[in-house]
Amino acid sequence: MAVYTEVSDEELAAFVASYDIGQVLSVKGIAEGVENSNFMLHTERGHYILTLYEKRVREADLPFFLGLMEHLAARGLICPQPVRRMTGETLGRLAGRPAAIVTFLDGVSVKRPTAAHCGEVGRALAALHQAGADFALARPNNLSLASWRQLFEQAGEGAERVASGLTARTLDLIGALEANWPADLPQGVIHADLFPDNVFFLGPRLSGLIDFYFACTDAFAYDLAICLNAWCFEADNSFNVTKGRAMIGGYETVRSLTDREVEALPVLCRGAALRFMLTRLVDWLNVPPGALVKPKDPLEYDRRLGFHRHVTDARDYGLAR
Amino acid sequence: MAVYTEVSDEELAAFVASYDIGQVLSVKGIAEGVENSNFMLHTERGHYILTLYEKRVREADLPFFLGLMEHLAARGLICPQPVRRMTGETLGRLAGRPAAIVTFLDGVSVKRPTAAHCGEVGRALAALHQAGADFALARPNNLSLASWRQLFEQAGEGAERVASGLTARTLDLIGALEANWPADLPQGVIHADLFPDNVFFLGPRLSGLIDFYFACTDAFAYDLAICLNAWCFEADNSFNVTKGRAMIGGYETVRSLTDREVEALPVLCRGAALRFMLTRLVDWLNVPPGALVKPKDPLEYDRRLGFHRHVTDARDYGLAR
Repeated sequence: MAVYTEVSDEELAAFVASYDIGQVLSVKGIAEGVENSNFMLHTERGHYILTLYEKRVREADLPFFLGLMEHLAARGLICPQPVRRMTGETLGRLAGRPAAIVTFLDGVSVKRPTAAHCGEVGRALAALHQAGADFALARPNNLSLASWRQLFEQAGEGAERVASGLTARTLDLIGALEANWPADLPQGVIHADLFPDNVFFLGPRLSGLIDFYFACTDAFAYDLAICLNAWCFEADNSFNVTKGRAMIGGYETVRSLTDREVEALPVLCRGAALRFMLTRLVDWLNVPPGALVKPKDPLEYDRRLGFHRHVTDARDYGLAR
Repeated sequence: MAVYTEVSDEELAAFVASYDIGQVLSVKGIAEGVENSNFMLHTERGHYILTLYEKRVREADLPFFLGLMEHLAARGLICPQPVRRMTGETLGRLAGRPAAIVTFLDGVSVKRPTAAHCGEVGRALAALHQAGADFALARPNNLSLASWRQLFEQAGEGAERVASGLTARTLDLIGALEANWPADLPQGVIHADLFPDNVFFLGPRLSGLIDFYFACTDAFAYDLAICLNAWCFEADNSFNVTKGRAMIGGYETVRSLTDREVEALPVLCRGAALRFMLTRLVDWLNVPPGALVKPKDPLEYDRRLGFHRHVTDARDYGLAR
């Protein structure tokens, strides 16, 4: 559940009064999501999402995230748009937390994506990369190559309890990625977490992207590698190349991959799978007693790495050239 | 959190298609509530609440609850109105559960009610009693006098672990209530759970009543006794007679209490406090490991009973005559 902080009526009314959106008509905590506290907010002016940023989001990063959403929305990408307070800021404080109000987006996230959905996501991802090109702020990706060895050390001996042999094959992979990670690929703003939860559809049409709280500055092709991992594997962790082909094809209708990006794609896909395996592993081993959120299984990504290890060419992911 | 059952996109689309409310535009689980799974549903036609009834609600009671909401709304009481399916029914099935769609009500539930709020609640409670007068269905109150001894037996030795002396004073009280419970008071449909969570306000004005899933046929004055317990005690479990006066006064602007109801009020208030103490006690002692919902403290009502035990006259609750 995703309401960690309770907000009193008086605090909420005072906070909303700092915006030009009228009086509160209704507020309801949203059950989905794990990082922040989110509320559906209905005011005299319309429907909004109120977010209270919890501990896992660094307050210093919020101007990047909120500025990015504003920048992307101004360039026609459909994403939540931060509402400015009467003083002009998009960030405020509520119940002791940094807080923001963003516009409400219609749409439903798909639980079982089809190839057509994957094609839409590819197109939207490339559109995001282009719309972010002239965004002035930068934010390093603190969950990329440089962090992985340290993340794995946090798991320590716990890794072998999760799966026998996990330590050896993960350390091998980290070593190989450190030796072969591509430098100087085209880069800019990436979403870095564009999982099905974070993409809305209305019927077959993609209607918006949400949750920019992992967005950062990194290689565009790495973002595509994350999406191939997040969208194109089946529940049994087999890779669906029809979905991969649709996603890469959709991406390239908007932005062509360079030869160096194509060449790097297998290494980037391994890195992306490793990144989610590692953060899930650390969360898995650190579930507090009585936790409200069931952690996600790290071994899903260990199994997907079994596929990636045998890939030598971007065509195995569906590249059609 | 209040989403116990996951609903797939396909199941939801098929379910919504059985109503004349257009396509699904958005659906989000609601974090509040403990009995059922609730979702905010936005369709082409408007905003709704989708409820999946979980185990604690008896399926056989649903026609009473849904019929009552429809009946009360037709008589001008502001409450969620069940939406009829194209076949005419208000009850359907979704994800293996009984399910219904009701209209969305604006309003905010107050966490710290004032005397003015209590007056509004008193008026609305009497209006509910009058609007329900010609409702054709009946449902016995299965959480009244006849159930209390058995409920307390469920707690067993656990009661003394919760508070030393709780067993003796509770058994004394149950005996006294069994000997003195008033019969033949004016009765009809009562809400039976009209706590602040279940009443919406817009500014100072009451804007609607929700959650009719404990509604039943019982004495009107017992419903008032529940509200006095739920609204007129302070956080330190002291009784605020100004709030009690506002609530009883508000009630009587719509429906006058009879002499026998006035006389019975102290006994009814003890019974109402006992009812919530007992269900909370049983929940408290039966929290499953890893439970998502923190149970409410039964001792709050044990402490409120400390006040009720010394009351001999309805004037102590604020009756102004």
